[in-house]
Amino acid sequence: AVDGRRLWDAIHETAAFGGTPKGGVRRLTLSDEDRQVRNWFRAACEALGCAVTVDDMGNMFARRPGRRDDLAPIAFGSHLDTQPTGGKFDGVLGVLAGLEVLRTLHDAGYETNAPLELVNWTNEEGSRFAPAMLASGVFAGAIAKETALNQTDREGATFGAELDRIGYRGDEPCGERAFSAFFELHIEQGPILQDEDKMVGVVEAVQGIRWYEITLIGQDAHSGATPMRLRRDALVGASRVVAAVDRIGRARPDCVGTVGLMEVKPNSRNVSPGEVFLTVDFRSPDDAKVAAMEADLIEAVAEITSDLGLDGAPVRIWDQPATIFDAACVAAVEAAAEAFGQGSRRMVSGAGHDAAYIARVAPTAMIFVPCKDGISHNEAESSTLEQCAAGAQVLLDAALRYDRK
Amino acid sequence: AVDGRRLWDAIHETAAFGGTPKGGVRRLTLSDEDRQVRNWFRAACEALGCAVTVDDMGNMFARRPGRRDDLAPIAFGSHLDTQPTGGKFDGVLGVLAGLEVLRTLHDAGYETNAPLELVNWTNEEGSRFAPAMLASGVFAGAIAKETALNQTDREGATFGAELDRIGYRGDEPCGERAFSAFFELHIEQGPILQDEDKMVGVVEAVQGIRWYEITLIGQDAHSGATPMRLRRDALVGASRVVAAVDRIGRARPDCVGTVGLMEVKPNSRNVSPGEVFLTVDFRSPDDAKVAAMEADLIEAVAEITSDLGLDGAPVRIWDQPATIFDAACVAAVEAAAEAFGQGSRRMVSGAGHDAAYIARVAPTAMIFVPCKDGISHNEAESSTLEQCAAGAQVLLDAALRYDRK
Ligand SMILES: NC(=O)NCCC(=O)O
Ligand SMILES: NC(=O)NCCC(=O)O
Repeated sequence: AVDGRRLWDAIHETAAFGGTPKGGVRRLTLSDEDRQVRNWFRAACEALGCAVTVDDMGNMFARRPGRRDDLAPIAFGSHLDTQPTGGKFDGVLGVLAGLEVLRTLHDAGYETNAPLELVNWTNEEGSRFAPAMLASGVFAGAIAKETALNQTDREGATFGAELDRIGYRGDEPCGERAFSAFFELHIEQGPILQDEDKMVGVVEAVQGIRWYEITLIGQDAHSGATPMRLRRDALVGASRVVAAVDRIGRARPDCVGTVGLMEVKPNSRNVSPGEVFLTVDFRSPDDAKVAAMEADLIEAVAEITSDLGLDGAPVRIWDQPATIFDAACVAAVEAAAEAFGQGSRRMVSGAGHDAAYIARVAPTAMIFVPCKDGISHNEAESSTLEQCAAGAQVLLDAALRYDRK
Repeated sequence: AVDGRRLWDAIHETAAFGGTPKGGVRRLTLSDEDRQVRNWFRAACEALGCAVTVDDMGNMFARRPGRRDDLAPIAFGSHLDTQPTGGKFDGVLGVLAGLEVLRTLHDAGYETNAPLELVNWTNEEGSRFAPAMLASGVFAGAIAKETALNQTDREGATFGAELDRIGYRGDEPCGERAFSAFFELHIEQGPILQDEDKMVGVVEAVQGIRWYEITLIGQDAHSGATPMRLRRDALVGASRVVAAVDRIGRARPDCVGTVGLMEVKPNSRNVSPGEVFLTVDFRSPDDAKVAAMEADLIEAVAEITSDLGLDGAPVRIWDQPATIFDAACVAAVEAAAEAFGQGSRRMVSGAGHDAAYIARVAPTAMIFVPCKDGISHNEAESSTLEQCAAGAQVLLDAALRYDRK
């Protein structure tokens, strides 16, 4: 059995790398804080005798040998990067529970058939570099490596240069290694498990996601000297886009629509703004609904720009269709959850996860545990020691069940 | 007569301090570029034998003695700071035309009765530090000096510390000196003179202005995992405020309403935003209409926050009632404009100006010259050599008429 207290301590120890006054974590991908937590992670894995390999997207793989080195490893893990004002659990739990699995097996001297690999995927959050799950996307062949390395943050720094800067561009070409399975433990980031008083979510699918960027161009104009009828105010336009996205997200069941990022230029109190950059995130478990939301968005933006004399249209920068996980992996998670015995249910993930990309190249499934009130991407994100330990236990059991299969 | 070419060259020489690739100027108040242009300005004035004094708000006064040193000086000037993406003429024309006046009198060996003073007011734009006309406001006793010195920019630097940093906190207490009159030449920043093919605007009033800050607080939430009905999205709320301000600005004649600045937190593509800071600018020549717009805003924000479960309300941070300029000063400008003979008309300024504060402590009036299509607070802002020279000539003539009175 895993040691819940040791896992809990590891979560709190790493939360210091980028810890915020409000108890959250700010550890943007490829930042100095990301380097610190990566160094900690490498040392912790090496202390167990695991060899740590880094690929050329910065993904980290800690390998524990098995009885049969001819088998592809059973892999598990998640990510150590966070949102700008993120919590202590999103991603971190999946990596550190994986570490706890390795520590437990190490202490027990347990030998698996297949090797095990614990993975830390780079840039899962997609907050600093778009899109999310960038490095697992390259690993799965869904995103071109050159495109990924040239992605820039909002200050213009490239992913590749930042990888070099923190010393985490490895030699191994990303995507070269194979897994016989991949399991990812994560906090639910939604309220269902808490509402139904269940400890474990057996995740069988991840909803589809599309992301867009829109740059609206009007004309900078003096806020005092420019009559309303002569304005081409890009912020008035952007505000109508935000309203449209909110309306579109509510128009059909099982859909969400969000504008998360907006930048106004010149952003001065007495200038009617001539330029606004904003992003749109649409999701649904039903890919047809995501496509319908896109059509609505294109129509709404066309109407807004023509009405206000603005230029600009949505550019789709990411399309990840809904993912259905592997039946055998889901069955292993379900069996482990049932054995754990504190209630479980099958569910669809609202958030995107590295597992959704890895599912394209390996049998994959996910495990959810509850988080308080479903709040995530928020410094107040919170799960209990018992919930974290439950997740780690089910992860260990699912991996061993799959290994014995 | 003034030397239009020399004035034109001075405008283009100083435009290099903060010059942008698009031909505009980025010279935020108390920045390094502001220091550079101030050093240039001081040297240019001293080369004419003028003594340059700096007060403790960074305002600069270049004094040319007159026949009678017992008279308070006739002052003129404007400001050398710009918007983040401003033009070459806003403010700069008024200061450099004043310099051209001094140069012309110097070359002609002309002696005035009263001393003359050319002024560069600090932080007219109000873009880096709110509100606009901060230092002329302190000079006129309308804004407390301590408040002004403690104003912070969006990065948290204080006005006082930045004054010290660029070496322009002088010894003289701001507001100690008296003027017998103040004249300010400025580009119109609106389209009327161009439309009516007139060279000079005789400005008899400045419209009233109120500024507000609003911080809307909701809750950061995951864009994929949070159902629409569980959100408290501060950006959806802010967008409705932008729409309300636009509607309020259009609801009555002779009114304008603008949201120029908006900051979203955490500003991440996959987070439904929990906090937005935005500003509102209302103006009208009729103070009662400004008050009516304020009432509309308070009502609209209350409705939006209650509808969306957000916290936040407008905080008024600036109130400058409409200004009526001094009849004798306006008459001097009108006589000078008529003598110039290329068409003039009386008008009300849509923009705020230092002259509106100085009017509280000295007889004051303003002179406008056309700018292309009325475009201002924009890198494309443009006036011709002839228009700039006409403004300088009328400024010279108005000051001399007032001096002979
Ligand atoms: N799990 C998680 O929060 N992932 C971030 C990517 C996304 O879903 O937007
Ligand atoms: N003249 C001018 O652009 N002043 C800036 C202050 C304002 O009117 O907002």
